[in-house]
Amino acid sequence: DQPMALFGGMNVLESRDLAMRVAEAYAEATTALDIPWVFKASFDKANRSSLHSFRGPGLDEGLKIFQEIKDTYDCPIITDVHEPYQAAPVAEVADIIQLPAFLARQTDLVVAMARTGAIINIKKPQFVAPQEMKHILHKCEEAGNDKLILCERGSCFGYNNLVVDMLGFGIMKQFGYPLFFDVTHALQMPGGRADSAGGRRQQVGELARAGISQGIAGLFLEAHPDPDNAKCDGPCALRLDRLQPFLEQMRTLDNTVKALPAFDNH
Amino acid sequence: DQPMALFGGMNVLESRDLAMRVAEAYAEATTALDIPWVFKASFDKANRSSLHSFRGPGLDEGLKIFQEIKDTYDCPIITDVHEPYQAAPVAEVADIIQLPAFLARQTDLVVAMARTGAIINIKKPQFVAPQEMKHILHKCEEAGNDKLILCERGSCFGYNNLVVDMLGFGIMKQFGYPLFFDVTHALQMPGGRADSAGGRRQQVGELARAGISQGIAGLFLEAHPDPDNAKCDGPCALRLDRLQPFLEQMRTLDNTVKALPAFDNH
Amino acid sequence: DQPMALFGGMNVLESRDLAMRVAEAYAEATTALDIPWVFKASFDKANRSSLHSFRGPGLDEGLKIFQEIKDTYDCPIITDVHEPYQAAPVAEVADIIQLPAFLARQTDLVVAMARTGAIINIKKPQFVAPQEMKHILHKCEEAGNDKLILCERGSCFGYNNLVVDMLGFGIMKQFGYPLFFDVTHALQMPGGRADSAGGRRQQVGELARAGISQGIAGLFLEAHPDPDNAKCDGPCALRLDRLQPFLEQMRTLDNTVKALPAFDNH
Amino acid sequence: DQPMALFGGMNVLESRDLAMRVAEAYAEATTALDIPWVFKASFDKANRSSLHSFRGPGLDEGLKIFQEIKDTYDCPIITDVHEPYQAAPVAEVADIIQLPAFLARQTDLVVAMARTGAIINIKKPQFVAPQEMKHILHKCEEAGNDKLILCERGSCFGYNNLVVDMLGFGIMKQFGYPLFFDVTHALQMPGGRADSAGGRRQQVGELARAGISQGIAGLFLEAHPDPDNAKCDGPCALRLDRLQPFLEQMRTLDNTVKALPAFDNH
Repeated sequence: DQPMALFGGMNVLESRDLAMRVAEAYAEATTALDIPWVFKASFDKANRSSLHSFRGPGLDEGLKIFQEIKDTYDCPIITDVHEPYQAAPVAEVADIIQLPAFLARQTDLVVAMARTGAIINIKKPQFVAPQEMKHILHKCEEAGNDKLILCERGSCFGYNNLVVDMLGFGIMKQFGYPLFFDVTHALQMPGGRADSAGGRRQQVGELARAGISQGIAGLFLEAHPDPDNAKCDGPCALRLDRLQPFLEQMRTLDNTVKALPAFDNH
Repeated sequence: DQPMALFGGMNVLESRDLAMRVAEAYAEATTALDIPWVFKASFDKANRSSLHSFRGPGLDEGLKIFQEIKDTYDCPIITDVHEPYQAAPVAEVADIIQLPAFLARQTDLVVAMARTGAIINIKKPQFVAPQEMKHILHKCEEAGNDKLILCERGSCFGYNNLVVDMLGFGIMKQFGYPLFFDVTHALQMPGGRADSAGGRRQQVGELARAGISQGIAGLFLEAHPDPDNAKCDGPCALRLDRLQPFLEQMRTLDNTVKALPAFDNH
Repeated sequence: DQPMALFGGMNVLESRDLAMRVAEAYAEATTALDIPWVFKASFDKANRSSLHSFRGPGLDEGLKIFQEIKDTYDCPIITDVHEPYQAAPVAEVADIIQLPAFLARQTDLVVAMARTGAIINIKKPQFVAPQEMKHILHKCEEAGNDKLILCERGSCFGYNNLVVDMLGFGIMKQFGYPLFFDVTHALQMPGGRADSAGGRRQQVGELARAGISQGIAGLFLEAHPDPDNAKCDGPCALRLDRLQPFLEQMRTLDNTVKALPAFDNH
Repeated sequence: DQPMALFGGMNVLESRDLAMRVAEAYAEATTALDIPWVFKASFDKANRSSLHSFRGPGLDEGLKIFQEIKDTYDCPIITDVHEPYQAAPVAEVADIIQLPAFLARQTDLVVAMARTGAIINIKKPQFVAPQEMKHILHKCEEAGNDKLILCERGSCFGYNNLVVDMLGFGIMKQFGYPLFFDVTHALQMPGGRADSAGGRRQQVGELARAGISQGIAGLFLEAHPDPDNAKCDGPCALRLDRLQPFLEQMRTLDNTVKALPAFDNH
């Protein structure tokens, strides 16, 4: 039960300058609060609702930005990969490579990622039960990689809505791997806007507190200096200027939760 | 943001002696921890899965037991009513009368309960969205009673399962009434056993922590000295000998949560 | 596999005159098509969203209207009861008494209804799995009544939506009782309007066809001459002037379905 | 409203000989019944639950088998692609290329498939509402391909279960493209077995009838001579020796449905 870590950053690398600005804010806040931090951003949004939605700078340009952030802020990097060929080059820069939720069962991608030897962050698909995540973990293990992290991000609940099943945290913790909570994506309302997902960012503090109350390894969080004009998932983003008070709260709560004695009611 | 209160007791009044024993345990634990406590039990389980399931002592005998508990432990009483004629006599003994989830939209029952002037605890039906609870609140107000409490107890999630939508707490808090969380019923797996509901009592601590993390008015909790042999909802019950450590944890967490500064991310 | 029957009428007895007009339309259409018909209406809507919603004429006045319809059109009557005391007087006029979905597990109501000896139409609650209906059937049998009918009307699907699980028909048919399909209530969108349920009446033909395709005992259907101004559930109602073409389609489809040879794929 | 077509075949190309045997059975049945038929099989199962599950013969060997079937039975071919590089070579043999449900929003795959000029069969993801399918259709159109087919295959309903929302057919038909129904995958129970999906193949006739009742362009169907020993999705497969009676029923029902006059209840 170590203190919470943070996979924190922005949704997509909108530009080198914005990425640096966001990374700087995270660096300051996490240094002040002594929270282990991994910078997160996507170089490509590979499954936007519309063909004309912003996708990002792409692999080559994205890796350059990651390298600059890594050098400047001395932080590890996490980013998501979408096709097998991306795994190896991404793992040369990123310390943690992420398996997207919709792709979490694509065998070739899993195998390519496992072979890099990098840590893999597995997003739980919105259509998979917590107990079924053992199969995806097992696939990675069979492919020779057991440096795995699980990440909750909500489950389908009717149409255009996600719900986070709090009982799923306890079930997934039993698999023995670190469990993170992607609070900003769990705020999505899929199809909630004309051509992209809506969100409930005003409730980010509430939902994050629920996740932290389960004694998890850490949070996955996306922030933006101007959510209303973000190029992707602004409706779910934390306001960047709220980052430090947000993290302070979570850290306070995390300390309390992890100091609680074990409790058994079998 | 006052400290958490407790609606604590047992599922059904299995016997006068067992009820006294359970009440004593709650009295001791809540006195030790300085938690405001209301004794909860049902005098009748009116919607068991089977005709032959145990229902309880009935109205007259039940009210006698409640009066004895009230006199002995100097605590208020909460219990549920199922038909309009029960509201008035129950409200003579009980301080809070509860509107069951399945019956929460039965107009005659709502009106009869409202007219007693007692505080009403409204269980959110498993088939109603958080934002729709305003209609049930409004019905009570129109019937002349605004001493209302809302109580979350989970939502239908496919067949034979409930999920607690953490975002619902924040939505319902905006109605301006105290919000409780019935953690033990939220652990039910409806139809999970041959002729009654199953449950996940081993996760009671986890789910209760999630509720407390939302800064709520209090918990609704059922305990039993021998859950495996309880006459109703044993699969969801807290072990009575775990009551004090359970409440200690919740109180510690509640103190932390309510000391957090307000947080806005609109 | 007898030809389909019809529980057909209107949602609530808005007035004696309107009820007679609706009954006449059903009488004509079902006579023309040779469809066995039971007139359906409610004398009281006991769980409207608002206290000020129209509830109906009440028990005494309602039974008078039912008797007049019965005498005039020589048809059996089906109506719903909400409290145990209503069962006996209602069963003196109604041939089939209906157990409402939200109340389907209220033991006292089930027992009071069973004791009348009338046929009971059991609405499947939106929160109960098809296979769990055996418990409610068993309760009625234990109470001494096996003249039972099951009626599908949709399942909770996220918030504010219902879905009809087509696989549930086959599961419930195995219980050996006639299975009806309440197509108009299955079109509801609970909480879809400010203070009442919304609906999808433009899809009534599509959803009815799906139900009929399962080889069921019959349809449950509500119509109204002016759905936009109906006092309850107009968003789900069939236009009364569409009754005959609607029933013609269903009957044609029902004939085809029931002429199909048995099919086994175990 | 043309008569139903059939995308019919087997789940995965278990072997050349078995594929020929299955194709022959479909050829005979569809010739006898005059049903337009496209042979369906997968050359690779790219997202099996386990790394050690059978995946199929792969692209090159698979295309050879498809060509032989095409030459022998003079039928068009439909198969699914999983990565952008596969689209062009597959489209040289296959007449219809299929976008898998989990991958339906992967922009690069959509674009690669659209550029082949082949007809695209879009499986509706289990996590997408019917009305949201317009975005995926629009993506294909923007990529220059409007030879599109939509295919329903069920929606997430809690954990480990799918439900087919019958109202979704009418919604999707309004997009103006042919709508198919993948009845065998809709029978899946995801995660229902230790390391693969379970199924409800004994209900294939019931669920197919429901789909056909909606007046759709056709069925998508997988059969196997020995479902208990099929290498993938046997729990959902039609028994191959039941193919002709199954199709006869569907065709009879389809004829009846499509002869019904238009019906409007707005």
